[in-house]
Amino acid sequence: MSNPFFLKKNHISLKEIFDLLKMDSNSIDKDIKINDIKDLINAEKNFITFLHSKKYSEAAKSTKASYCLTTKNLKDYLPTNCKPIIIKDVLLATSLITQKFYPNSIEDVFDVEVKKIEEVNLKNKVIYGKNVLVGENVDIGSGCLIGHNTIIEKNVKIGNNCKIGSNTVIRNSFIKDNVSILDNCVIGKKGFGFFPKNSKNIRYPHIGIVIINENCEIGCGATIDRGSMSNTEIGKNTFLDNQVHIAHNVKIGENTIIAGQVGIAGSSMIGKNVRIGGQAGISGHLKIGDNVDIAGGSGVIKDIPNNTKVMGYPAKNIREFLRENNQ
Amino acid sequence: MSNPFFLKKNHISLKEIFDLLKMDSNSIDKDIKINDIKDLINAEKNFITFLHSKKYSEAAKSTKASYCLTTKNLKDYLPTNCKPIIIKDVLLATSLITQKFYPNSIEDVFDVEVKKIEEVNLKNKVIYGKNVLVGENVDIGSGCLIGHNTIIEKNVKIGNNCKIGSNTVIRNSFIKDNVSILDNCVIGKKGFGFFPKNSKNIRYPHIGIVIINENCEIGCGATIDRGSMSNTEIGKNTFLDNQVHIAHNVKIGENTIIAGQVGIAGSSMIGKNVRIGGQAGISGHLKIGDNVDIAGGSGVIKDIPNNTKVMGYPAKNIREFLRENNQ
Amino acid sequence: MSNPFFLKKNHISLKEIFDLLKMDSNSIDKDIKINDIKDLINAEKNFITFLHSKKYSEAAKSTKASYCLTTKNLKDYLPTNCKPIIIKDVLLATSLITQKFYPNSIEDVFDVEVKKIEEVNLKNKVIYGKNVLVGENVDIGSGCLIGHNTIIEKNVKIGNNCKIGSNTVIRNSFIKDNVSILDNCVIGKKGFGFFPKNSKNIRYPHIGIVIINENCEIGCGATIDRGSMSNTEIGKNTFLDNQVHIAHNVKIGENTIIAGQVGIAGSSMIGKNVRIGGQAGISGHLKIGDNVDIAGGSGVIKDIPNNTKVMGYPAKNIREFLRENNQ
Repeated sequence: MSNPFFLKKNHISLKEIFDLLKMDSNSIDKDIKINDIKDLINAEKNFITFLHSKKYSEAAKSTKASYCLTTKNLKDYLPTNCKPIIIKDVLLATSLITQKFYPNSIEDVFDVEVKKIEEVNLKNKVIYGKNVLVGENVDIGSGCLIGHNTIIEKNVKIGNNCKIGSNTVIRNSFIKDNVSILDNCVIGKKGFGFFPKNSKNIRYPHIGIVIINENCEIGCGATIDRGSMSNTEIGKNTFLDNQVHIAHNVKIGENTIIAGQVGIAGSSMIGKNVRIGGQAGISGHLKIGDNVDIAGGSGVIKDIPNNTKVMGYPAKNIREFLRENNQ
Repeated sequence: MSNPFFLKKNHISLKEIFDLLKMDSNSIDKDIKINDIKDLINAEKNFITFLHSKKYSEAAKSTKASYCLTTKNLKDYLPTNCKPIIIKDVLLATSLITQKFYPNSIEDVFDVEVKKIEEVNLKNKVIYGKNVLVGENVDIGSGCLIGHNTIIEKNVKIGNNCKIGSNTVIRNSFIKDNVSILDNCVIGKKGFGFFPKNSKNIRYPHIGIVIINENCEIGCGATIDRGSMSNTEIGKNTFLDNQVHIAHNVKIGENTIIAGQVGIAGSSMIGKNVRIGGQAGISGHLKIGDNVDIAGGSGVIKDIPNNTKVMGYPAKNIREFLRENNQ
Repeated sequence: MSNPFFLKKNHISLKEIFDLLKMDSNSIDKDIKINDIKDLINAEKNFITFLHSKKYSEAAKSTKASYCLTTKNLKDYLPTNCKPIIIKDVLLATSLITQKFYPNSIEDVFDVEVKKIEEVNLKNKVIYGKNVLVGENVDIGSGCLIGHNTIIEKNVKIGNNCKIGSNTVIRNSFIKDNVSILDNCVIGKKGFGFFPKNSKNIRYPHIGIVIINENCEIGCGATIDRGSMSNTEIGKNTFLDNQVHIAHNVKIGENTIIAGQVGIAGSSMIGKNVRIGGQAGISGHLKIGDNVDIAGGSGVIKDIPNNTKVMGYPAKNIREFLRENNQ
């Protein structure tokens, strides 16, 4: 599932893209049309993709994209079906083109078009509190409860038997059956991704969504940001305690337990049957295996293999940590 | 004070309990009635209790309960007045029976029966903001203020001269005189206690409440969960800064100061005149003495005796920690 | 800019001040009037100031104040134009006199006088959601958006093109142009400053405000407290992620990036172009230089010079930290 919610332009001409990137477009055939922008793996024929780091050279070799934003040093990883477009700042260019395709994915202003739930056709389907607001393109299954002052903005799909608390804001999210989301949460806002630039940072588009699978529980005051190019996803039957922060693009497996005030930085992948103690922090772009135990307060800065127990900052084997600290 | 708020069944027959636990009940006298389930110390005659760890063997020896869920290895700690019921998973059995006694203590859905404060008899007693909602069985003293969008769900007692901020949710709580609770708090939701089970965790009942004693201040965005079998309690004149998380069953003494973003895990006991610096974390089931100083950022994983200053992760004597780190 | 929002008494007689501090006022000339209370640097002629620590002896030497609350040991740092008033607890005396000048700066009760935005003259100027409340003395520029259930209490000035999310509370703040404040924030409440006193703490007055400069972004669930004697200020184009806590009197420079769940304790000064990783904590009264990188999870307990990268708890040079931990 990818980005069902953001309005996408049908196509953009390659010439427009060159103009946008302030590259010489005189020699570009005006009739070449690009259908979408995706990462190396998900891009198809007539799509544009991007390659900004050698880390992704394997994925590059088999991309189906027709064009790829990349650097001089990386262009040789691309297959013959994929023409390189050489540019200095690949991610900035990617951001600019993504904005062009998805013009409403940058800003995260509140949904001004929501209506009181009494005024929409969900009225007889859900049990709802006072002052509940619902946007357009919202679908809610049977047997759901939605608490007071909660705002389900546009582009949200909620399954059956879900329980949403009070004072919660949900947007750009797909919530499956039997999920509980408690009070004062914010689910589906754009991630904290931008290009730092003196005097005026450039926001990165976030065309991903948040997917919360069956039987999950999300504690009070949680924030779960939606993904930039991919989705943020919480696996089945995973429980989050209060005040947890899940950044954009994070994937969490099934049956995982995350205690209070944990923070998981952008794009990290957490396995299944993982237990994370209170206030632990996980850096971005890491891979935490299955059946991992991370003790409360730990700071994880490296990948962790399956079936491992870690503790400390930086997190290391728990027995080693306790021994070193005479515990 | 214990559990004044949860509807309790008058009694359950011992036979029903055996059936619930899928144990052979053919030989059980149908007329034996159990009045309630409590911990070893608070259980009375004709109550059922539970003993799941050797740690509680002393308490077991003098329990007044008539029956006790326990294991083969632990049953001999029980006095003759208390008959053991041998079961493998004592806590799960305890949970099932608690649910049977307190059928509405599992789920924490929003209180659908609240009314606008203008429609209840508190109208002339409190100074209130816009869109304030109040549930049944709510009692509020004189001289109180309740901010905008705040929801006082059913089963809440608030003393005199309390100041509640805006966007706050309170349920199953007893707030005494002169307490300030600031904006965006959630007080009294169920704790993060459940039995992990692949594909569908089993929620633990929370029949405790939150008690906040006189002159306390609770900062913005705080979450204080109610207890499972006992209460969560904050002592007199204890101040909590913003974004603090207090888990279920925690007890905090008087005149304690807790800075921003501190987290205290389930069932820990904090003494009086304790100072806890920002972002410190305290693991579950610990005993922190009186007059203890815990430096900001510390991770406490062991009991701390009275009159001690600690720092670090794991937290240790502050002088030792600073010396080891050449500070 | 200082304290435009708190109602100030025109002047208080020196005799009143002596009486308030329970000092012998028989010999005080009844006609001496004090115009205001300020810190050593900002105080002017006929103002009272305070000197409670040797750390401020340099500032003391050139103060323009006519009177200064101080101790016997410190009084000799004062210039001849400034008469010492010797008292044991300088900060408590300062607090009492500040309360006298600014009687409504102690308590932080919700603004009971707010109106629905439809009823005030901002209606045609801003795009607003449902249930938006606005207090007196609120000024909002053009092109602003204000989300659902958001409360702009009295004494707030918002510039042009600002975007405020839903469920946010703002008071005593000056928000400049192009600022985004996301959902569920609390901006401008009083700081966590008080004099601990058994059985009833004494709250410290907070007459400062929060200033958020141009192009800033403040993430969901953030809390930014207003200053006590000075202001809390966020520099231009500084971005804060979700669940960040900024305590009273903190100053943050321009172009700084602060990741999720960071906490900055009272009165610390953060430079420009600083990057602070997720969950890092910074103790109070520190000075963090420009172009500093603080790794996620760090606990900073000392000043950090310009152009430094630190990590760890206590935070130290990042290379040293990684080497010591075999990373």
